[in-house]
Amino acid sequence: MKAVTLLSGGMDSTTLVYYLRNEGYDVHALSIYYGQRHIKELDYARQMCDRIHVRRNEIDLSDVGRLLSKSGSALVDNRVEMPEGHYSEASMSQTVVPNRNMMLLSIATAIAVAGGADIVAAAVHAGDHAIYPDCRPMFIEAMNEAATVATEGFWMGSIVAPFVDKTKAEIAALGAELHVPWELTWSCYKGGQHHCGKCGTCVERQEAFHIAGVVDPTTYLDPEYWKQAVANK
Amino acid sequence: MKAVTLLSGGMDSTTLVYYLRNEGYDVHALSIYYGQRHIKELDYARQMCDRIHVRRNEIDLSDVGRLLSKSGSALVDNRVEMPEGHYSEASMSQTVVPNRNMMLLSIATAIAVAGGADIVAAAVHAGDHAIYPDCRPMFIEAMNEAATVATEGFWMGSIVAPFVDKTKAEIAALGAELHVPWELTWSCYKGGQHHCGKCGTCVERQEAFHIAGVVDPTTYLDPEYWKQAVANK
Repeated sequence: MKAVTLLSGGMDSTTLVYYLRNEGYDVHALSIYYGQRHIKELDYARQMCDRIHVRRNEIDLSDVGRLLSKSGSALVDNRVEMPEGHYSEASMSQTVVPNRNMMLLSIATAIAVAGGADIVAAAVHAGDHAIYPDCRPMFIEAMNEAATVATEGFWMGSIVAPFVDKTKAEIAALGAELHVPWELTWSCYKGGQHHCGKCGTCVERQEAFHIAGVVDPTTYLDPEYWKQAVANK
Repeated sequence: MKAVTLLSGGMDSTTLVYYLRNEGYDVHALSIYYGQRHIKELDYARQMCDRIHVRRNEIDLSDVGRLLSKSGSALVDNRVEMPEGHYSEASMSQTVVPNRNMMLLSIATAIAVAGGADIVAAAVHAGDHAIYPDCRPMFIEAMNEAATVATEGFWMGSIVAPFVDKTKAEIAALGAELHVPWELTWSCYKGGQHHCGKCGTCVERQEAFHIAGVVDPTTYLDPEYWKQAVANK
Protein backbone atom coordinates (compact mmCIF):
# COMPACT_ATOMS: atom_id res chain seq x y z
CA MET A 1 0.00 0.00 0.00
CA LYS A 2 1.27 3.43 -0.92
CA ALA A 3 0.50 6.76 0.73
CA VAL A 4 1.31 10.30 -0.36
CA THR A 5 1.34 12.54 2.69
CA LEU A 6 1.75 16.25 3.27
CA LEU A 7 4.69 16.88 5.58
CA SER A 8 5.13 20.39 6.93
CA GLY A 9 7.82 19.41 9.41
CA GLY A 10 5.62 20.02 12.45
CA MET A 11 4.74 17.46 15.10
CA ASP A 12 1.37 16.44 13.61
CA SER A 13 2.52 15.66 10.08
CA THR A 14 5.72 14.03 11.35
CA THR A 15 3.65 11.79 13.62
CA LEU A 16 1.47 11.01 10.61
CA VAL A 17 4.49 9.76 8.66
CA TYR A 18 5.37 7.45 11.56
CA TYR A 19 1.74 6.35 11.92
CA LEU A 20 1.41 5.51 8.20
CA ARG A 21 4.67 3.53 8.20
CA ASN A 22 3.47 1.67 11.25
CA GLU A 23 0.23 0.87 9.39
CA GLY A 24 2.30 -0.68 6.61
CA TYR A 25 2.28 2.09 4.04
CA ASP A 26 5.12 2.89 1.71
CA VAL A 27 5.20 6.64 2.39
CA HIS A 28 5.99 9.42 -0.09
CA ALA A 29 6.16 12.74 1.75
CA LEU A 30 5.60 16.12 0.11
CA SER A 31 6.80 19.35 1.67
CA ILE A 32 5.51 22.48 0.04
CA TYR A 33 6.92 26.00 0.08
CA TYR A 34 4.07 28.46 -0.39
CA GLY A 35 5.84 31.52 1.00
CA GLN A 36 5.55 30.65 4.70
CA ARG A 37 7.75 32.74 6.97
CA HIS A 38 8.73 29.64 8.89
CA ILE A 39 10.46 28.07 5.88
CA LYS A 40 12.70 26.54 8.52
CA GLU A 41 10.11 23.79 9.02
CA LEU A 42 11.14 22.36 5.63
CA ASP A 43 14.70 21.70 6.87
CA TYR A 44 13.29 19.76 9.79
CA ALA A 45 11.10 17.73 7.43
CA ARG A 46 14.15 16.93 5.30
CA GLN A 47 16.29 15.86 8.25
CA MET A 48 13.56 13.66 9.66
CA CYS A 49 12.95 11.91 6.32
CA ASP A 50 16.67 11.43 5.79
CA ARG A 51 16.95 9.80 9.20
CA ILE A 52 14.22 7.23 8.58
CA HIS A 53 14.75 6.89 4.82
CA VAL A 54 11.36 8.15 3.72
CA ARG A 55 11.07 9.38 0.14
CA ARG A 56 10.36 13.09 0.15
CA ASN A 57 9.99 15.79 -2.47
CA GLU A 58 9.89 19.50 -1.95
CA ILE A 59 7.55 21.51 -4.15
CA ASP A 60 8.21 25.16 -4.78
CA LEU A 61 5.07 27.28 -5.03
CA SER A 62 6.98 30.57 -4.76
CA ASP A 63 4.96 32.09 -7.57
CA VAL A 64 1.76 31.43 -5.62
CA GLY A 65 3.41 32.64 -2.41
CA ARG A 66 4.20 35.99 -4.03
CA LEU A 67 0.56 36.40 -5.05
CA LEU A 68 -0.53 35.63 -1.46
CA SER A 69 2.04 37.93 0.13
CA LYS A 70 -0.43 40.82 0.37
CA SER A 71 -3.27 38.63 1.63
CA GLY A 72 -3.09 39.81 5.24
CA SER A 73 -2.25 36.30 6.45
CA ALA A 74 0.46 36.51 9.10
CA LEU A 75 2.05 33.31 7.77
CA VAL A 76 2.86 34.76 4.34
CA ASP A 77 2.40 38.54 4.61
CA ASN A 78 5.42 40.16 6.29
CA ARG A 79 3.48 43.32 7.05
CA VAL A 80 1.31 41.46 9.57
CA GLU A 81 2.63 40.90 13.08
CA MET A 82 2.44 37.27 14.20
CA PRO A 83 -0.32 37.00 16.84
CA GLU A 84 0.64 35.56 20.22
CA GLY A 85 -1.59 33.64 22.61
CA HIS A 86 -3.82 30.59 22.54
CA TYR A 87 -4.97 29.05 19.26
CA SER A 88 -8.59 29.57 20.27
CA GLU A 89 -8.28 33.36 20.28
CA ALA A 90 -9.95 35.38 17.54
CA SER A 91 -6.62 36.94 16.51
CA MET A 92 -5.41 33.53 15.33
CA SER A 93 -7.61 33.81 12.25
CA GLN A 94 -4.79 36.00 10.96
CA THR A 95 -2.75 32.84 10.53
CA VAL A 96 -5.13 31.37 7.96
CA VAL A 97 -3.48 31.11 4.53
CA PRO A 98 -6.05 31.49 1.73
CA ASN A 99 -7.19 28.08 0.53
CA ARG A 100 -3.91 26.48 1.53
CA ASN A 101 -5.03 22.94 2.22
CA MET A 102 -7.11 22.73 -0.93
CA MET A 103 -4.02 23.61 -2.98
CA LEU A 104 -1.73 21.25 -1.13
CA LEU A 105 -4.13 18.31 -1.17
CA SER A 106 -4.91 18.82 -4.87
CA ILE A 107 -1.21 18.71 -5.71
CA ALA A 108 -0.68 15.67 -3.48
CA THR A 109 -3.59 13.95 -5.20
CA ALA A 110 -2.11 14.59 -8.66
CA ILE A 111 1.13 12.98 -7.51
CA ALA A 112 -0.77 10.10 -5.90
CA VAL A 113 -2.64 9.43 -9.15
CA ALA A 114 0.59 9.55 -11.16
CA GLY A 115 2.36 7.20 -8.74
CA GLY A 116 -0.54 4.83 -8.13
CA ALA A 117 -0.83 5.62 -4.41
CA ASP A 118 -3.84 4.35 -2.47
CA ILE A 119 -4.32 7.31 -0.19
CA VAL A 120 -3.46 10.97 0.19
CA ALA A 121 -3.09 11.87 3.85
CA ALA A 122 -3.11 15.13 5.79
CA ALA A 123 -2.46 15.65 9.49
CA VAL A 124 -5.28 18.08 10.24
CA HIS A 125 -6.58 17.56 13.78
CA ALA A 126 -9.45 18.56 16.05
CA GLY A 127 -7.57 21.49 17.57
CA ASP A 128 -7.38 23.14 14.15
CA HIS A 129 -11.12 23.15 13.52
CA ALA A 130 -11.98 26.36 15.34
CA ILE A 131 -9.82 28.67 13.25
CA TYR A 132 -9.01 26.77 10.07
CA PRO A 133 -12.05 25.91 7.94
CA ASP A 134 -9.80 23.83 5.69
CA CYS A 135 -8.97 21.47 8.56
CA ARG A 136 -12.52 20.38 9.40
CA PRO A 137 -14.04 16.97 8.68
CA MET A 138 -16.49 18.57 6.22
CA PHE A 139 -13.58 19.92 4.20
CA ILE A 140 -11.84 16.56 4.01
CA GLU A 141 -15.12 14.96 2.88
CA ALA A 142 -15.70 17.65 0.24
CA MET A 143 -12.13 17.30 -1.04
CA ASN A 144 -12.40 13.54 -1.22
CA GLU A 145 -15.63 13.92 -3.19
CA ALA A 146 -14.05 16.43 -5.60
CA ALA A 147 -10.98 14.22 -6.08
CA THR A 148 -13.14 11.16 -6.70
CA VAL A 149 -15.09 12.98 -9.41
CA ALA A 150 -11.94 14.57 -10.87
CA THR A 151 -10.12 11.27 -11.30
CA GLU A 152 -13.01 9.00 -12.30
CA GLY A 153 -11.68 6.12 -14.32
CA PHE A 154 -8.06 6.97 -13.44
CA TRP A 155 -7.75 6.55 -9.66
CA MET A 156 -9.45 4.47 -7.00
CA GLY A 157 -7.77 6.11 -4.00
CA SER A 158 -9.02 8.56 -1.42
CA ILE A 159 -8.07 11.58 0.64
CA VAL A 160 -7.90 10.79 4.35
CA ALA A 161 -7.17 12.58 7.61
CA PRO A 162 -6.49 9.95 10.26
CA PHE A 163 -6.10 12.55 13.03
CA VAL A 164 -9.12 14.69 12.17
CA ASP A 165 -10.88 13.79 15.44
CA LYS A 166 -7.77 13.65 17.64
CA THR A 167 -6.59 16.45 19.88
CA LYS A 168 -3.00 17.57 19.58
CA ALA A 169 -2.31 16.00 23.02
CA GLU A 170 -3.52 12.66 21.64
CA ILE A 171 -1.15 13.12 18.68
CA ALA A 172 1.72 13.83 21.11
CA ALA A 173 0.87 10.63 23.01
CA LEU A 174 0.70 8.62 19.78
CA GLY A 175 3.96 10.13 18.54
CA ALA A 176 5.68 9.21 21.80
CA GLU A 177 4.53 5.60 21.41
CA LEU A 178 5.88 5.57 17.86
CA HIS A 179 9.18 7.15 18.96
CA VAL A 180 8.83 10.30 16.88
CA PRO A 181 12.05 12.35 17.21
CA TRP A 182 10.47 15.58 18.47
CA GLU A 183 13.77 17.41 18.17
CA LEU A 184 13.41 17.02 14.39
CA THR A 185 10.02 18.77 14.33
CA TRP A 186 9.45 22.49 13.99
CA SER A 187 6.23 24.34 14.89
CA CYS A 188 6.94 28.03 15.53
CA TYR A 189 5.31 30.34 12.99
CA LYS A 190 7.99 32.97 13.55
CA GLY A 191 10.73 30.69 12.25
CA GLY A 192 13.54 32.18 14.35
CA GLN A 193 16.60 30.42 15.75
CA HIS A 194 14.51 28.84 18.52
CA HIS A 195 10.78 28.31 19.01
CA CYS A 196 9.38 31.60 20.36
CA GLY A 197 7.04 29.92 22.84
CA LYS A 198 4.37 32.59 22.36
CA CYS A 199 2.76 32.26 18.93
CA GLY A 200 -0.39 30.17 18.60
CA THR A 201 1.35 27.04 17.46
CA CYS A 202 4.12 27.27 20.10
CA VAL A 203 1.48 27.58 22.83
CA GLU A 204 -0.47 24.67 21.40
CA ARG A 205 2.70 22.55 21.17
CA GLN A 206 3.64 23.07 24.79
CA GLU A 207 0.09 22.51 26.00
CA ALA A 208 -0.12 19.25 24.03
CA PHE A 209 3.11 17.82 25.44
CA HIS A 210 2.01 18.85 28.93
CA ILE A 211 -1.45 17.23 28.71
CA ALA A 212 0.00 14.07 27.15
CA GLY A 213 2.69 13.85 29.84
CA VAL A 214 5.35 13.63 27.16
CA VAL A 215 8.81 15.14 27.69
CA ASP A 216 9.28 18.09 25.34
CA PRO A 217 12.90 18.50 24.24
CA THR A 218 12.22 21.86 22.55
CA THR A 219 14.04 25.05 23.50
CA TYR A 220 11.59 27.97 23.77
CA LEU A 221 12.66 31.60 24.03
CA ASP A 222 9.84 32.06 26.55
CA PRO A 223 9.03 28.69 28.14
CA GLU A 224 6.50 30.03 30.67
CA TYR A 225 4.15 32.16 28.57
CA TRP A 226 2.01 29.24 27.38
CA LYS A 227 0.61 28.57 30.88
CA GLN A 228 -0.82 32.05 31.08
CA ALA A 229 -2.18 31.82 27.51
CA VAL A 230 -3.91 28.55 28.35
CA ALA A 231 -5.28 29.99 31.60
CA ASN A 232 -6.69 32.99 29.72
CA LYS A 233 -8.36 31.08 26.92
CA MET B 1 -16.57 42.69 -10.01
CA LYS B 2 -13.32 40.78 -10.14
CA ALA B 3 -12.62 37.43 -11.77
CA VAL B 4 -9.59 35.17 -11.58
CA THR B 5 -9.49 32.97 -14.64
CA LEU B 6 -7.30 30.13 -15.83
CA LEU B 7 -5.76 31.00 -19.19
CA SER B 8 -3.98 28.23 -21.05
CA GLY B 9 -3.59 30.21 -24.23
CA GLY B 10 -6.04 28.05 -26.19
CA MET B 11 -9.19 29.27 -27.92
CA ASP B 12 -11.60 28.37 -25.09
CA SER B 13 -9.81 30.12 -22.24
CA THR B 14 -8.96 33.10 -24.45
CA THR B 15 -12.61 33.44 -25.39
CA LEU B 16 -13.43 33.22 -21.68
CA VAL B 17 -11.21 36.22 -20.96
CA TYR B 18 -13.05 38.20 -23.64
CA TYR B 19 -16.42 36.97 -22.36
CA LEU B 20 -15.66 37.96 -18.75
CA ARG B 21 -14.46 41.42 -19.78
CA ASN B 22 -17.61 41.84 -21.83
CA GLU B 23 -19.65 40.88 -18.75
CA GLY B 24 -17.94 43.70 -16.85
CA TYR B 25 -15.35 41.78 -14.87
CA ASP B 26 -11.92 43.08 -13.99
CA VAL B 27 -9.99 39.99 -15.14
CA HIS B 28 -6.85 38.53 -13.57
CA ALA B 29 -5.55 35.69 -15.74
CA LEU B 30 -3.36 32.86 -14.48
CA SER B 31 -1.29 30.72 -16.81
CA ILE B 32 0.24 27.67 -15.23
CA TYR B 33 3.24 25.62 -16.29
CA TYR B 34 2.81 22.06 -15.05
CA GLY B 35 5.26 20.40 -17.41
CA GLN B 36 3.08 20.47 -20.54
CA ARG B 37 4.94 19.72 -23.77
CA HIS B 38 3.10 22.54 -25.48
CA ILE B 39 4.66 25.19 -23.23
CA LYS B 40 4.34 27.35 -26.32
CA GLU B 41 0.71 28.03 -25.36
CA LEU B 42 1.97 30.24 -22.52
CA ASP B 43 3.65 32.65 -24.97
CA TYR B 44 0.36 32.99 -26.80
CA ALA B 45 -1.44 33.73 -23.52
CA ARG B 46 1.15 36.39 -22.70
CA GLN B 47 0.91 38.09 -26.09
CA MET B 48 -2.87 38.11 -25.98
CA CYS B 49 -2.99 39.63 -22.48
CA ASP B 50 -0.38 42.23 -23.43
CA ARG B 51 -2.46 43.24 -26.41
CA ILE B 52 -5.66 43.85 -24.44
CA HIS B 53 -3.98 44.94 -21.19
CA VAL B 54 -5.25 42.12 -19.00
CA ARG B 55 -3.34 41.44 -15.79
CA ARG B 56 -1.71 38.02 -16.02
CA ASN B 57 0.60 35.98 -13.84
CA GLU B 58 2.47 32.86 -14.76
CA ILE B 59 2.82 30.18 -12.10
CA ASP B 60 5.63 27.69 -12.27
CA LEU B 61 4.68 24.21 -11.07
CA SER B 62 7.83 22.61 -12.52
CA ASP B 63 8.37 20.59 -9.36
CA VAL B 64 4.93 19.05 -9.77
CA GLY B 65 5.53 18.58 -13.51
CA ARG B 66 8.66 16.54 -12.79
CA LEU B 67 6.68 14.25 -10.48
CA LEU B 68 4.03 13.78 -13.19
CA SER B 69 6.56 13.18 -15.97
CA LYS B 70 6.34 9.41 -15.58
CA SER B 71 2.56 9.38 -15.30
CA GLY B 72 1.92 8.04 -18.79
CA SER B 73 0.03 11.19 -19.78
CA ALA B 74 1.03 12.23 -23.29
CA LEU B 75 0.86 15.89 -22.29
CA VAL B 76 3.65 15.65 -19.69
CA ASP B 77 5.38 12.29 -20.25
CA ASN B 78 7.80 12.48 -23.19
CA ARG B 79 7.90 8.70 -23.53
CA VAL B 80 4.28 8.65 -24.70
CA GLU B 81 3.51 9.38 -28.33
CA MET B 82 0.85 12.06 -28.81
CA PRO B 83 -2.32 10.35 -30.06
CA GLU B 84 -3.81 11.59 -33.33
CA GLY B 85 -7.45 11.54 -34.33
CA HIS B 86 -10.76 12.77 -32.99
CA TYR B 87 -11.18 13.78 -29.35
CA SER B 88 -13.87 11.16 -28.90
CA GLU B 89 -11.48 8.27 -29.52
CA ALA B 90 -10.43 6.03 -26.63
CA SER B 91 -6.74 6.82 -27.24
CA MET B 92 -7.37 10.43 -26.21
CA SER B 93 -7.56 9.35 -22.56
CA GLN B 94 -3.75 9.38 -22.81
CA THR B 95 -3.94 13.16 -22.83
CA VAL B 96 -5.46 13.33 -19.34
CA VAL B 97 -3.06 14.95 -16.86
CA PRO B 98 -3.56 13.53 -13.35
CA ASN B 99 -5.86 15.81 -11.35
CA ARG B 100 -4.83 18.84 -13.34
CA ASN B 101 -7.92 20.97 -13.06
CA MET B 102 -8.28 20.37 -9.34
CA MET B 103 -4.74 21.70 -8.82
CA LEU B 104 -5.19 24.67 -11.13
CA LEU B 105 -8.58 25.69 -9.73
CA SER B 106 -7.37 25.33 -6.13
CA ILE B 107 -4.45 27.64 -6.83
CA ALA B 108 -6.69 30.10 -8.66
CA THR B 109 -9.08 30.06 -5.70
CA ALA B 110 -6.28 30.85 -3.24
CA ILE B 111 -5.33 33.86 -5.37
CA ALA B 112 -8.99 34.88 -5.69
CA VAL B 113 -9.43 34.79 -1.90
CA ALA B 114 -6.22 36.80 -1.38
CA GLY B 115 -7.28 39.39 -3.97
CA GLY B 116 -10.96 39.58 -3.05
CA ALA B 117 -12.18 38.27 -6.42
CA ASP B 118 -15.83 37.33 -6.81
CA ILE B 119 -15.39 34.36 -9.09
CA VAL B 120 -12.83 31.83 -10.26
CA ALA B 121 -13.51 30.82 -13.84
CA ALA B 122 -12.44 27.92 -16.03
CA ALA B 123 -13.15 27.37 -19.72
CA VAL B 124 -14.08 23.69 -19.61
CA HIS B 125 -16.72 22.88 -22.22
CA ALA B 126 -19.11 20.15 -23.28
CA GLY B 127 -16.69 18.63 -25.79
CA ASP B 128 -14.25 17.87 -22.98
CA HIS B 129 -16.67 15.81 -20.91
CA ALA B 130 -16.17 12.49 -22.64
CA ILE B 131 -12.46 12.12 -21.90
CA TYR B 132 -11.70 14.55 -19.10
CA PRO B 133 -13.53 13.79 -15.84
CA ASP B 134 -12.22 17.07 -14.42
CA CYS B 135 -14.11 19.06 -17.04
CA ARG B 136 -17.62 17.80 -16.25
CA PRO B 137 -20.38 19.79 -14.54
CA MET B 138 -20.23 17.42 -11.53
CA PHE B 139 -16.57 18.26 -11.04
CA ILE B 140 -17.17 22.01 -11.13
CA GLU B 141 -19.98 21.57 -8.58
CA ALA B 142 -17.80 19.42 -6.30
CA MET B 143 -14.94 21.91 -6.52
CA ASN B 144 -17.21 24.81 -5.75
CA GLU B 145 -18.53 22.94 -2.72
CA ALA B 146 -15.00 22.12 -1.50
CA ALA B 147 -13.88 25.73 -2.00
CA THR B 148 -16.92 27.04 -0.17
CA VAL B 149 -16.19 24.82 2.83
CA ALA B 150 -12.44 25.53 2.69
CA THR B 151 -12.86 29.29 2.78
CA GLU B 152 -15.84 29.60 5.14
CA GLY B 153 -15.74 32.98 6.83
CA PHE B 154 -13.00 34.23 4.48
CA TRP B 155 -14.52 34.25 1.00
CA MET B 156 -17.99 34.62 -0.48
CA GLY B 157 -17.02 33.85 -4.08
CA SER B 158 -17.54 30.81 -6.25
CA ILE B 159 -15.97 28.64 -8.91
CA VAL B 160 -17.77 28.88 -12.23
CA ALA B 161 -17.53 27.41 -15.73
CA PRO B 162 -19.60 29.58 -18.06
CA PHE B 163 -18.93 27.32 -21.07
CA VAL B 164 -19.53 23.99 -19.38
CA ASP B 165 -22.61 23.27 -21.52
CA LYS B 166 -21.33 24.87 -24.73
CA THR B 167 -19.78 22.99 -27.62
CA LYS B 168 -16.44 24.17 -28.94
CA ALA B 169 -18.21 25.37 -32.10
CA GLU B 170 -20.44 27.55 -29.92
CA ILE B 171 -17.32 28.94 -28.25
CA ALA B 172 -15.83 29.68 -31.69
CA ALA B 173 -19.01 31.53 -32.65
CA LEU B 174 -19.01 33.49 -29.39
CA GLY B 175 -15.31 34.29 -29.76
CA ALA B 176 -15.89 35.58 -33.28
CA GLU B 177 -18.64 37.90 -31.98
CA LEU B 178 -16.27 39.18 -29.30
CA HIS B 179 -13.44 39.66 -31.83
CA VAL B 180 -11.05 37.17 -30.22
CA PRO B 181 -7.71 37.31 -32.07
CA TRP B 182 -7.49 33.62 -33.01
CA GLU B 183 -3.97 34.07 -34.31
CA LEU B 184 -2.94 34.67 -30.68
CA THR B 185 -4.35 31.34 -29.49
CA TRP B 186 -2.50 28.04 -29.46
CA SER B 187 -4.10 24.59 -29.22
CA CYS B 188 -1.72 21.91 -30.59
CA TYR B 189 -0.56 19.45 -27.94
CA LYS B 190 2.65 18.79 -29.86
CA GLY B 191 3.82 22.39 -29.46
CA GLY B 192 5.86 22.49 -32.68
CA GLN B 193 6.46 25.47 -34.94
CA HIS B 194 2.98 25.19 -36.43
CA HIS B 195 -0.20 23.43 -35.32
CA CYS B 196 0.13 19.78 -36.42
CA GLY B 197 -3.50 19.46 -37.50
CA LYS B 198 -3.70 15.84 -36.34
CA CYS B 199 -3.66 15.66 -32.55
CA GLY B 200 -6.99 15.59 -30.70
CA THR B 201 -7.07 19.27 -29.97
CA CYS B 202 -6.02 20.30 -33.50
CA VAL B 203 -8.81 18.18 -34.98
CA GLU B 204 -11.29 19.62 -32.51
CA ARG B 205 -10.15 23.17 -33.28
CA GLN B 206 -10.61 22.79 -37.03
CA GLU B 207 -13.96 21.05 -36.62
CA ALA B 208 -15.20 23.84 -34.31
CA PHE B 209 -14.27 26.66 -36.70
CA HIS B 210 -15.84 24.73 -39.56
CA ILE B 211 -19.16 24.10 -37.76
CA ALA B 212 -19.31 27.70 -36.53
CA GLY B 213 -18.58 29.03 -39.99
CA VAL B 214 -15.74 31.12 -38.61
CA VAL B 215 -12.60 31.81 -40.66
CA ASP B 216 -9.65 29.98 -39.11
CA PRO B 217 -6.37 31.87 -39.62
CA THR B 218 -4.28 28.99 -38.25
CA THR B 219 -1.51 27.31 -40.26
CA TYR B 220 -1.71 23.52 -39.91
CA LEU B 221 1.04 21.15 -41.06
CA ASP B 222 -1.73 18.84 -42.26
CA PRO B 223 -4.88 20.89 -42.93
CA GLU B 224 -6.93 18.02 -44.40
CA TYR B 225 -6.56 15.23 -41.84
CA TRP B 226 -9.29 16.53 -39.53
CA LYS B 227 -12.07 15.83 -42.06
CA GLN B 228 -11.19 12.17 -42.13
CA ALA B 229 -10.87 12.04 -38.31
CA VAL B 230 -14.33 13.58 -37.95
CA ALA B 231 -15.78 11.18 -40.55
CA ASN B 232 -14.29 8.20 -38.67
CA LYS B 233 -15.48 9.16 -35.21
